[in-house]
Amino acid sequence: MENVARLAGVLGEIKVDWAVLTGADSVCFATGHVVSIEIGLNPFAGGPTLAFIGRDQSVGIVCANIEGEQIRGVNYETYRGFECAVTDVAANFHRAVLAMAKRLGVSGKCGIEARSHPASLNEILGGASVSIDHDLARLRAIKTPHEIEKMRFAALCVAAGQDEARKRSSVGASELDVLNRIRARMENMAGERCAFAGEYLSGVTHTATLGTQPSSRVLQKGDPIICDLGPRVHGYWGDSCGSFIVDATPSDAYLRMFQASREALDLAISEIRPGLKVSELDRILRAFMQKQGYVYPHHSGHEFPRIVPDEDARLEADMFLMIEPSAYDPEVGGVRCEYMLRVTSTGSEIVAPFELNPVLGA
Amino acid sequence: MENVARLAGVLGEIKVDWAVLTGADSVCFATGHVVSIEIGLNPFAGGPTLAFIGRDQSVGIVCANIEGEQIRGVNYETYRGFECAVTDVAANFHRAVLAMAKRLGVSGKCGIEARSHPASLNEILGGASVSIDHDLARLRAIKTPHEIEKMRFAALCVAAGQDEARKRSSVGASELDVLNRIRARMENMAGERCAFAGEYLSGVTHTATLGTQPSSRVLQKGDPIICDLGPRVHGYWGDSCGSFIVDATPSDAYLRMFQASREALDLAISEIRPGLKVSELDRILRAFMQKQGYVYPHHSGHEFPRIVPDEDARLEADMFLMIEPSAYDPEVGGVRCEYMLRVTSTGSEIVAPFELNPVLGA
Repeated sequence: MENVARLAGVLGEIKVDWAVLTGADSVCFATGHVVSIEIGLNPFAGGPTLAFIGRDQSVGIVCANIEGEQIRGVNYETYRGFECAVTDVAANFHRAVLAMAKRLGVSGKCGIEARSHPASLNEILGGASVSIDHDLARLRAIKTPHEIEKMRFAALCVAAGQDEARKRSSVGASELDVLNRIRARMENMAGERCAFAGEYLSGVTHTATLGTQPSSRVLQKGDPIICDLGPRVHGYWGDSCGSFIVDATPSDAYLRMFQASREALDLAISEIRPGLKVSELDRILRAFMQKQGYVYPHHSGHEFPRIVPDEDARLEADMFLMIEPSAYDPEVGGVRCEYMLRVTSTGSEIVAPFELNPVLGA
Repeated sequence: MENVARLAGVLGEIKVDWAVLTGADSVCFATGHVVSIEIGLNPFAGGPTLAFIGRDQSVGIVCANIEGEQIRGVNYETYRGFECAVTDVAANFHRAVLAMAKRLGVSGKCGIEARSHPASLNEILGGASVSIDHDLARLRAIKTPHEIEKMRFAALCVAAGQDEARKRSSVGASELDVLNRIRARMENMAGERCAFAGEYLSGVTHTATLGTQPSSRVLQKGDPIICDLGPRVHGYWGDSCGSFIVDATPSDAYLRMFQASREALDLAISEIRPGLKVSELDRILRAFMQKQGYVYPHHSGHEFPRIVPDEDARLEADMFLMIEPSAYDPEVGGVRCEYMLRVTSTGSEIVAPFELNPVLGA
């Protein structure tokens, strides 16, 4: 429970008595418990799975009965969610939160997650509360050795998914066909279903248009592909993006785009080191792409800190960055080359390399 | 916008001025807008996508910029979520909610969804609020003609998924392999990724144990399979369950379990009609199964009303019921036969039948 101690330390610094975590990623960060998220809020849950973390390092989770069986080595309280009776799951949740708060002696100032803290808890917990979103993001950005192993495994699953994408991207398959073959490969490796962010897109229009969702469009000869994989593996998010052409020699215009994105990624790999200002990294990458004639309307990377022009944070060792300098052309399609990088003590490390090559089977 | 009028009618009856919808299913019910849920709360959203519905039938949606493009024919307000700058998404969300509330003239008593209403909105909206969870569930239970078409299509996707399950369940494939082939079939039919509740389980232990999740377990000759498919298709949830044996003749013990579950489902189909008390339907099904020697520790069906022993509600025309009388035996495995049924004016209709047969390829 190294992260409980780290979080308790932050609570001391910001003079907050209890963290009340309601975001799935935060609960997992602090307690190791992986909250199911794939259908949003479960119909048999009365509220989000919640974790109290005290400045004294006390821990208590509150969750629905169906979820409790999965918790290991942490104090928890369940309430009736899925059961064979008419029941008010929201009221059951509230009672369980109150019981846990009493058991732990929750009082004083609570630090909450503004985006996911249910209104009903305000009445129950009373007292003052303050958002700790920013403090949590900063703390979570630096991974512990245990978390580095989790991130490494997520990256390996993602690399396997990219390998599967190259094998399965053939004329006649639909985007959703290929995406689900990729999911199967990653999920078999994880040994479980993985919530999935990202996209698998084909053709000029789909790949050149941000916000497009995977569809039943069937792959055609010469299609550009963008394969952006973001599975949550054992509670930690992997990410990566490969780009290539289906069953044909890439055009010169496509190769120029690919080369720009690939070289910008290499540039990031060579520039990243502790102490580098995020805004400077962003500037370097955008400037490089712009010199080749490409502009991308999104961040140069994430998680926290997001690699955007006005982020003042500096890189620190054991941050994980998903770097994705991209090129889009409505006539040619889109290219995005993205690796998961770890900031090391002296530079950066590609967490799990995979083939970035515009030509399939090359 | 038939459901806006229906909801406005209910608000009038319960003397609530505005509904503040924050659950994805409720927002879709009232406005038709399908909120993405597959990774829980999006990291680039400042809170749940929210819909105000007035007693005067005013409608306004608040969502992050990336989501706004998908809204059709409804008044909406977006805020900066995904963008190329450092920004406080929670604060942006709050400002947009306030702007929309002002534009619509939201005042008086608000009806909220207790499980998903963010605490931060209380300060913003002020005034009194009351949970409308139960009223919403009752209202949503009766489908409009437009919704019946949506449910019918979801049922057709599910039936296609069950067909795929029978084709792909072969020795050597893993649970997750087969599940992702099923997803591909359903998602191709839907033309989009579908959030997915349910499970595909193999072998005696996995199928006999409630709460088991699909894994990389490889199917073996003679395995019992439980294939419970709950995809969300264009905002509406399909559901169904098939059970069968892989590549072998079922044992007598399995066939007895299958027959009991299958006949209980037929019994439900013949008993269901408007006016029937839910508790009575539940009693009939459990009694039938018990006479064959089987007890299932879960509801006999759902959605609202859930088919449980103490539910006093009565069935009404155009409710959709997912009926799933089941049998579990730690020595033999589990069997669950489930169809989506619509309550008609005189009885019930199987919305989209598919093969329920313990023998594959029979």
